[in-house]
Amino acid sequence: MNAPLAFEILCRCGSTRARVGRVKTAHGEFDTPAFMPVGTQGTIKGLLPPLVAATGAQIVLGNTYHLLLRPGPETVSKLGGLHGFMGWDGPILTDSGGYQVYSLDDISSLDDDGVTFRSVVDGSEVVLTPERAIEVQNLLGADIIMALDDCPPSVDPQAAQRAAERVSARRSAARRVRDHSKRLDEAMDRTARWLDRCARAHARRSEQALFGIVQGGADLDRRDRSASQVCAIDLPGYAIGGVAVGEGFEEIVRVVRHTAPLLPEARPRYLMGVGYERDIVAAVRAGVDMFDCVLPTRNGRNAFAFTTTGSLRLRNAQFAQDSAPLDEACDCPACSPARHAWRTPEGRPLSRAYLRHLFMAGEMLGPILTSLHNLRHFQRLMLDIRRAIREDGWAEFGRRWPSAAQGLGEQPRDPAA
Amino acid sequence: MNAPLAFEILCRCGSTRARVGRVKTAHGEFDTPAFMPVGTQGTIKGLLPPLVAATGAQIVLGNTYHLLLRPGPETVSKLGGLHGFMGWDGPILTDSGGYQVYSLDDISSLDDDGVTFRSVVDGSEVVLTPERAIEVQNLLGADIIMALDDCPPSVDPQAAQRAAERVSARRSAARRVRDHSKRLDEAMDRTARWLDRCARAHARRSEQALFGIVQGGADLDRRDRSASQVCAIDLPGYAIGGVAVGEGFEEIVRVVRHTAPLLPEARPRYLMGVGYERDIVAAVRAGVDMFDCVLPTRNGRNAFAFTTTGSLRLRNAQFAQDSAPLDEACDCPACSPARHAWRTPEGRPLSRAYLRHLFMAGEMLGPILTSLHNLRHFQRLMLDIRRAIREDGWAEFGRRWPSAAQGLGEQPRDPAA
Repeated sequence: MNAPLAFEILCRCGSTRARVGRVKTAHGEFDTPAFMPVGTQGTIKGLLPPLVAATGAQIVLGNTYHLLLRPGPETVSKLGGLHGFMGWDGPILTDSGGYQVYSLDDISSLDDDGVTFRSVVDGSEVVLTPERAIEVQNLLGADIIMALDDCPPSVDPQAAQRAAERVSARRSAARRVRDHSKRLDEAMDRTARWLDRCARAHARRSEQALFGIVQGGADLDRRDRSASQVCAIDLPGYAIGGVAVGEGFEEIVRVVRHTAPLLPEARPRYLMGVGYERDIVAAVRAGVDMFDCVLPTRNGRNAFAFTTTGSLRLRNAQFAQDSAPLDEACDCPACSPARHAWRTPEGRPLSRAYLRHLFMAGEMLGPILTSLHNLRHFQRLMLDIRRAIREDGWAEFGRRWPSAAQGLGEQPRDPAA
Repeated sequence: MNAPLAFEILCRCGSTRARVGRVKTAHGEFDTPAFMPVGTQGTIKGLLPPLVAATGAQIVLGNTYHLLLRPGPETVSKLGGLHGFMGWDGPILTDSGGYQVYSLDDISSLDDDGVTFRSVVDGSEVVLTPERAIEVQNLLGADIIMALDDCPPSVDPQAAQRAAERVSARRSAARRVRDHSKRLDEAMDRTARWLDRCARAHARRSEQALFGIVQGGADLDRRDRSASQVCAIDLPGYAIGGVAVGEGFEEIVRVVRHTAPLLPEARPRYLMGVGYERDIVAAVRAGVDMFDCVLPTRNGRNAFAFTTTGSLRLRNAQFAQDSAPLDEACDCPACSPARHAWRTPEGRPLSRAYLRHLFMAGEMLGPILTSLHNLRHFQRLMLDIRRAIREDGWAEFGRRWPSAAQGLGEQPRDPAA
């Protein structure tokens, strides 16, 4: 059996646990720390694949849950797998579908066998077991696939209570959540048992790398136990799940700083669903290599632009006559069309006023351009993070990225001060 | 005063009135016969300008009506004119706004002075006079601008009756349409008087070419009279209006075949808002040089794909597993990604099944890809039309474009038959 994935650490930071590396897959390589745009339904919303690639993205994420319901993994497989289906020949990662099942759906039953829920597409009953989650991902054909985990409600007791009430009120057949602590233990142990079943069910081990997921919520002892259970199975990579499910920045950092070093040093570490720039910077410094988040695209569709110095809400009237680009520091197609061989007069950037006009007029190009800009913003962040690691230049990094500086943990030292 | 536009006829067809030419403007050239994609609100819906240019479009159209209401011509002017505002440095044509006022709006008054209507954006009262229509277009700064005309209801008596009832029922202050024939005469004469006022009001004559519009409905005598009125004013180009407002193919052809030769031979002739492939082919053979139509983009957004052999309704279940591209003959980014430096596995085209999936899942990329495909379809049509003119090769053209062959007037002769 050939290894489906090779991870090489090219450089380690002199002052933190951060490292620069490269992951090789059957569909090409990507540099780490890496940010993966989310292509939920076989498309990064509104963006042709070459535009996604032009942002610097080297790997994209697909959501198993959505593709399972529509058009179905068998259809995707017939049409060339997810790579051929969506026209992306670089690396792809698919999640297991579990997270969406727990957060979006009518769950009718959840037990050791798996989870049964109703499809939001056609109301049909769908069963997701560890074996089926892997079968579906084998059919989709991504380069990295994720084990099915049991995702308990948020560690925030109030949020957990609300979630429990919602489930019990709506689904009499659903398991009642009586004891949050007991539920977390159950989920953690089940996640480990399911990982074992996922690893056994995996039918394309030489082509697709299966990652396990460490759970355990906000309790660091549980994180220890989960990491030891999950890492007991030798896998090409490991992920930290259950983070950024509603808790604040300090809490995210506390859990990630504790958990990342528990994962094998020689394997890529993936922090699922995180996050803002400061979260990513803090996690990189804790030793994390891979990230995904819907923020750049989801917020972009809602007229929210990330910039080096903070965010812009483009519907705000203050931008109605603003001739400045979204971010002077950015080189995306909106901010720096000349770099992308656009035919704009004098290579001028598009204005904030134009972007605002597109949103006010309900034009698709608003979400498209702002998503592109935000994705490029996050890829520029990753490029600069890799540079900061190589040069151990976090103080300079913090000055270039005020919006991310909180992730440095302490105020960046200024050698000139 | 320099001429804002130069038109050179490069080649005449041996058997029809068709000609191949080139129009030079302050923002570059375009080949004729030309098809202009419609960018209503300062954007070709869903498409970045470089993607529009990649379809082969050399000139785009903007709608004065929409830009007048939002964001306002003064704002567009401050932000670099329409070219700078939307990031398109090639030629642009703007219409006068009249057509949309008559077709979309609550008209409160229409008389020799101009037309008063309520804005669909904020309900405010807006007055459009010939002078204001030109002032607005002077501010937008397109290379070709259109005179404000008086657009009477369709010549279809039933449609005219319905329109008249609608107006009188909804707006007691509106002018009652008592006599359709009298109304057509009035509109025609008013259009001529307004053209004169537009020409006098035009403040950027060395930069923007003003086109007059021939009206007259389906009555060929009225077309004669309107053409003689409009062409009495020396202008850089002339348009045929009031066509394809609901009538069938034969009727369009009858009016265009009669009217096009009435316009000056040495000026570009523009048939407004037309149309399907067969309409364009028939009009080119009658001597028309310029076209615009929302069909490729509007239909594309509604999952309707044009192909060389006919049309596809992509939501149809028959395409759910169809691995074929939209059109084997097409070289758009969806049908032939390898030509566009896409990173698709093995340069494979995107499948009809994938396009259908995007529409079923409500993904923006469905409208985007199908609009791109349709625009490329129309640009390929124009390329092949120019080739047919140069080679007098209409029979071969008809075999390559079954969907357009009806526009040839007779069945293409097959030399081999």
